[in-house]
Amino acid sequence: MNTLSSINYPIFFDNSITELVKFIKQGDYSRFFVLTDENTAKHCLPVIREQIDDLDNFDIIEINSGEESKNIDFCVGVWKMLIDFSADRQSLLINLGGGVISDLGGFAASTYKRGIDFVHVPTTLLSQVDASVGGKTGIDLDNIKNIIGTFTQPKAVFIEHAFLKTLPARQILSGLAEMLKHGLIMDAGYWNLLKNSDLKNPSADLIYRSIEIKNKVVIEDPHEKGIRKSLNFGHTVGHAVETYSLVNDENPLTHGEAIAIGMICEAKLSHMQAGLPETALNEIVDTINSLYPKYKIAASCYKKLYSIMLKDKKNQSGKINCTLLTNIGQCRIDNVCTEEELCESLSYYSTL
Amino acid sequence: MNTLSSINYPIFFDNSITELVKFIKQGDYSRFFVLTDENTAKHCLPVIREQIDDLDNFDIIEINSGEESKNIDFCVGVWKMLIDFSADRQSLLINLGGGVISDLGGFAASTYKRGIDFVHVPTTLLSQVDASVGGKTGIDLDNIKNIIGTFTQPKAVFIEHAFLKTLPARQILSGLAEMLKHGLIMDAGYWNLLKNSDLKNPSADLIYRSIEIKNKVVIEDPHEKGIRKSLNFGHTVGHAVETYSLVNDENPLTHGEAIAIGMICEAKLSHMQAGLPETALNEIVDTINSLYPKYKIAASCYKKLYSIMLKDKKNQSGKINCTLLTNIGQCRIDNVCTEEELCESLSYYSTL
Repeated sequence: MNTLSSINYPIFFDNSITELVKFIKQGDYSRFFVLTDENTAKHCLPVIREQIDDLDNFDIIEINSGEESKNIDFCVGVWKMLIDFSADRQSLLINLGGGVISDLGGFAASTYKRGIDFVHVPTTLLSQVDASVGGKTGIDLDNIKNIIGTFTQPKAVFIEHAFLKTLPARQILSGLAEMLKHGLIMDAGYWNLLKNSDLKNPSADLIYRSIEIKNKVVIEDPHEKGIRKSLNFGHTVGHAVETYSLVNDENPLTHGEAIAIGMICEAKLSHMQAGLPETALNEIVDTINSLYPKYKIAASCYKKLYSIMLKDKKNQSGKINCTLLTNIGQCRIDNVCTEEELCESLSYYSTL
Repeated sequence: MNTLSSINYPIFFDNSITELVKFIKQGDYSRFFVLTDENTAKHCLPVIREQIDDLDNFDIIEINSGEESKNIDFCVGVWKMLIDFSADRQSLLINLGGGVISDLGGFAASTYKRGIDFVHVPTTLLSQVDASVGGKTGIDLDNIKNIIGTFTQPKAVFIEHAFLKTLPARQILSGLAEMLKHGLIMDAGYWNLLKNSDLKNPSADLIYRSIEIKNKVVIEDPHEKGIRKSLNFGHTVGHAVETYSLVNDENPLTHGEAIAIGMICEAKLSHMQAGLPETALNEIVDTINSLYPKYKIAASCYKKLYSIMLKDKKNQSGKINCTLLTNIGQCRIDNVCTEEELCESLSYYSTL
């Protein structure tokens, strides 16, 4: 395992915190700001601090953990903290946390003084294999996920496998959904490897391979004009279910739990219109269902879920656009799905 | 006079509204949104509407005119309108108005769904010669001008000289300050031409030349790493005075009035530390003072103005950074000015 090259920036896997400290020391930065939440401030920040000799130029900006923080109010809070700390254009923002921290921090940095540098130190499996690589920043508005954001690349990403040890099992499962997706859309061998691995504690090698797949796609198509849409498999239905759950459930679904549901529904759609064989559909459904708890979606909610999908960023001219599988390890982008088809896929999930 | 080429986009000068309509018809856009204020909705929007055959795909987003609208609340308002109108990624935002409209509209568009296309139709002299060209978008926060924004180029700019006819004289003067600046930093011949022209009604040719100068600079240095800083002449002191006035005066200074003051102060600083000859200083002061009303700045305000300057985007490591003139038509970037020097320049302005 070594360092991956992404769009003008490196992704470090070995001795990542040492590499981060080296990056900080070698860079021409005037000030450093670490964006954390209460969890990473407790579990991860000390690991970094103990390796830094001079902490005078470091300030901490802490926000509440959870998707509820990924909105414009918290973003304004980060901007105001940067102003109060007199952050200039030569400042570096270090996003230490999960996807909320990297998405929100990336957006705040990419727009503060028309853009200051930032790096990601993803501390959850989900953010390691998904949010930290690819240059998408974003916040939610009106309960629409990532509706506001920019395409801005970080200056570096530091993947520290040891940080995963402090994660609850549910958070590991959340990231695992994206790893399964990477296999399903692009690499049948990787999918088979995952099926036969200890998925409660994914190894550093499995994570490396997942990031390698995502990185290859985003390098080819950074602004999601074509092939990058393949990464949206499971996300049309999944985002809608996630949004719905966030608003309605006391204990909302994690991103990965919602994407797991989305992948089952979209695998069904793949079977219906993209030629995914029934055996493959069953294999996908069995694998996902053995890992993730069942979520109850009443038929009376389908209309609401459909109306959320209608606001999806990926739509074109009011039509809902899905990435579907033609087989395990192969996908096809830009498939229009009708309300009837989407409801049928939700109904399929419910009857499993 | 013809079309200028900027960074991947054209700036139209002749038959601009016809060109806009052509652009709209030829583009592959799903929907069109026009951002206006109450003034441009009344005076300029009808000129465009009468040339469009099919208005079904057009929606209007109107905000209040004035710098007070250039904040995150109005930006969220624009985002929410785009969401409510179901604007997809193939939508085009047409910014029809002055600098507030183009800065705010550009920022809203550059971040909605991670960026939709936008064009500028600047309707004030100031926005024609300044805000519409160069790809800076922005909003104010905590009374700091343009502290949040992106570098994003419009797809086209349409300069319609006829729109200036509806402008009050004070608005013409506001734009004129930037034209004078273009001469002072880059082109002594243009400065002399301006001095001998009817500046109450600047001709289309004078405006073209001003945009040509600005465009040349931003093409060379889009992200303001070097030569583009020359455009900041007058803006370190000017922005501070503008911010101060916006907060404290019932009838605040226009941008150009503030920049006129800033140019006098920074011409004085240029004389003090960059070798601007005294005759040139006097010529600049006399020209500006003959055009702009005197503004009273009490000595007791200098500390406050300095504290505003300390928050300027252009500072580095807490030091205030000015662009100064070495002569008329020539400038030097990155001059550090101390609190004493800045106060002396303010005091110089006050004693004139």
